Amino acid sequence: MTAKATINSQRLLERLDRFAEIGATAGGGVNRQALTMLDRQARLLLAKLAEARGFGVFQDPVANLFIRRSGRDEGAPPLLIGSHLDSQPSGGRFDGALGTLTAFEVLESLEDAGVQTERPVEVVAWMNEEGCRFAPGCMGSSAFAAGAIPLEWPGIIATDGARFEDELRETLAALPRAAMRNLGFPAHSYLEVHIEQGPSLEKENIPIGIVTGIQGTRWLEVTVSGQTAHAGTTALTYRRDPLHAMVSALERLYASIMPADDRARFTVGRIMVEPGAVNAIPQMARCTIDIRHPDTSEIDRLSVMAEQFFGEGAAAERCQVSFRQTFDMPPANFPPKVLEALDRAAAKAGLATKSMLSGAFHDALFVNRVAPSAMIFVPCRDGLSHNEAEYTSPDHVVSGARMLLLATAEILDSDI
Amino acid sequence: MTAKATINSQRLLERLDRFAEIGATAGGGVNRQALTMLDRQARLLLAKLAEARGFGVFQDPVANLFIRRSGRDEGAPPLLIGSHLDSQPSGGRFDGALGTLTAFEVLESLEDAGVQTERPVEVVAWMNEEGCRFAPGCMGSSAFAAGAIPLEWPGIIATDGARFEDELRETLAALPRAAMRNLGFPAHSYLEVHIEQGPSLEKENIPIGIVTGIQGTRWLEVTVSGQTAHAGTTALTYRRDPLHAMVSALERLYASIMPADDRARFTVGRIMVEPGAVNAIPQMARCTIDIRHPDTSEIDRLSVMAEQFFGEGAAAERCQVSFRQTFDMPPANFPPKVLEALDRAAAKAGLATKSMLSGAFHDALFVNRVAPSAMIFVPCRDGLSHNEAEYTSPDHVVSGARMLLLATAEILDSDI
Repeated sequence: MTAKATINSQRLLERLDRFAEIGATAGGGVNRQALTMLDRQARLLLAKLAEARGFGVFQDPVANLFIRRSGRDEGAPPLLIGSHLDSQPSGGRFDGALGTLTAFEVLESLEDAGVQTERPVEVVAWMNEEGCRFAPGCMGSSAFAAGAIPLEWPGIIATDGARFEDELRETLAALPRAAMRNLGFPAHSYLEVHIEQGPSLEKENIPIGIVTGIQGTRWLEVTVSGQTAHAGTTALTYRRDPLHAMVSALERLYASIMPADDRARFTVGRIMVEPGAVNAIPQMARCTIDIRHPDTSEIDRLSVMAEQFFGEGAAAERCQVSFRQTFDMPPANFPPKVLEALDRAAAKAGLATKSMLSGAFHDALFVNRVAPSAMIFVPCRDGLSHNEAEYTSPDHVVSGARMLLLATAEILDSDI
Repeated sequence: MTAKATINSQRLLERLDRFAEIGATAGGGVNRQALTMLDRQARLLLAKLAEARGFGVFQDPVANLFIRRSGRDEGAPPLLIGSHLDSQPSGGRFDGALGTLTAFEVLESLEDAGVQTERPVEVVAWMNEEGCRFAPGCMGSSAFAAGAIPLEWPGIIATDGARFEDELRETLAALPRAAMRNLGFPAHSYLEVHIEQGPSLEKENIPIGIVTGIQGTRWLEVTVSGQTAHAGTTALTYRRDPLHAMVSALERLYASIMPADDRARFTVGRIMVEPGAVNAIPQMARCTIDIRHPDTSEIDRLSVMAEQFFGEGAAAERCQVSFRQTFDMPPANFPPKVLEALDRAAAKAGLATKSMLSGAFHDALFVNRVAPSAMIFVPCRDGLSHNEAEYTSPDHVVSGARMLLLATAEILDSDI
């Protein structure tokens, strides 16, 4: 059906460069955090490109952005293909943008070839996948899957002090020509191309990863409260130092979790103290913990271990400790029928594949709750991601796009 | 000579309350950091009180504020008495303000009694003692002692992003009626009342500490650089986590320094990472270290130990580490003649005293380089300072003021 459609490699690569200019950092990366002016600029550019090709442009109340190419049966639920456009504060050019622009290239390839599909195909850019400016991550896709915006979201405050509902309203207003849709319409299925964000495809020299599922993720925010006092006068016996308590607990967790289990991930990405004066013992220390594992029971066990070590660290310093779970995503598995369609597409493309589990979470995990989903990984250099040096070669970019085009055809032709 | 002068307790206590309103925090403390609008407000209030009594008001190019009560010999170098008006971000009502307002009360007591002194007596409020908004601390007194502003100061950036030279200019401009003086004029001597900021006077039930010297202080800023990467995908072997390196080094330092030597102080008052996303391994971790000891060679040894432990922690994570010394103050001893004058004053006041070393550094340490100086400590509850709960009882406040008044008389009558 889509046999005559082909990827325009040059167009896709130039477009990746063009989007990488929006929020470009001195170190060659991208800082285009969710709902910022720069995020709005990227959304506007995609909408303009879509309008130039005659595609429909829609957004829903959480600012998920949809680019629609009509099908013969306009009432049929669309096949969604896409990813996200927001980045980490010190992020790379490919995480999110690659999947979104690859999907748009597939839409243009179908248009170039004059292919008429039975059902509509839509590119989607999910709002705030990264979760770094506003936590949690995957806001757009999780609200889409739930069909509702959680009550607490409007009041969420960004790391830069902005309020979620204000930034959401401004972001929606920045695309006045996009028609508004209800949140969570029926979708036929969902495919997402993404860089691996790990080293295995590159090391094994395999161009395509077929992602069978996503490991679980839990985010904790730990607050230890002690007593601030003068650094020069306060002897050890009088100290109740919350940072000392935190450091002791973290050192035990670093030593215990990852060295014992190479499927586990333990990361402290934020740490701060108050009042934060060089010559004052902190009153309060706070850090985040990111725990991941393919097995939910192991995530539970590691969370309990963190609570235990922090409890013991705090007790030794006569401090109080509190935990807040800010994000919890159980492991997921993608449906076999979608995975089989990906296998057939890879065979037709003549691309070697590897079945793999995703270490990162993705929008596909949430969308999979309401529409059969799967992901296609392409290699990235040294496995680096969430890093300005993130890089995927043009060959791998193009292979990913060819794979998505053929997978789109397989899904459209299948009985999923 | 000053025998008929007496402290007006009520006036002094009310004035402490009045100044505590400027920058008052919800927790009962004060946030009046150096060169802020609130600091300017406190300086303006003191200048107005001085004008109301007919005292002269002067400032020098680093915004040290002087209130002058003339002497018979106007050409004689003045006796300086005072402290500072700036506070920690989460500071108390007494640290600095007590010494400045006690000194002003002494000046008013002399005025009330119509005492004519031979040499002028001046209250001084030194600029930026705390060093928390702009590092280093004791800027005003150290520039006074050096007779010059270090070349790098104008460009120093505050924790809130403000530039030192801008804030200094605005602070000076906020007192347009104060006459400008040269930096570092000849002073006869210097006395400073301050809360102990430690528990010993309270525990031993002694109202007055006569401070014989100040322990040395060194501030280090440690930066560990690694490689940011995705928290979910990056296995332990691929990580170069600067926070892990920092935590390992800090845990060893916490375990090694203070438990082994109760005269040593080791404090980490600030810690941060970049980029600071919950799901990204940090690229960079930075912390401050405050080391104190009465013995310079021990400060040197502890600094070397910190460099060693950080070097080992960074090597284990394949990170780089760099150290910057932001402040270094050797231990100091006050001149015996000034200490003897304080002993005589205490005997006349009928106040019990204890000779002690200061754990905190103070402006007196710098002023002592150019004018014989000493300090008078009063107890504070639970030894708490740099804390909103900082408290000194009215009785101790008044004893400190009586002591300073009598010490002022002793110094004026002495052959120092």
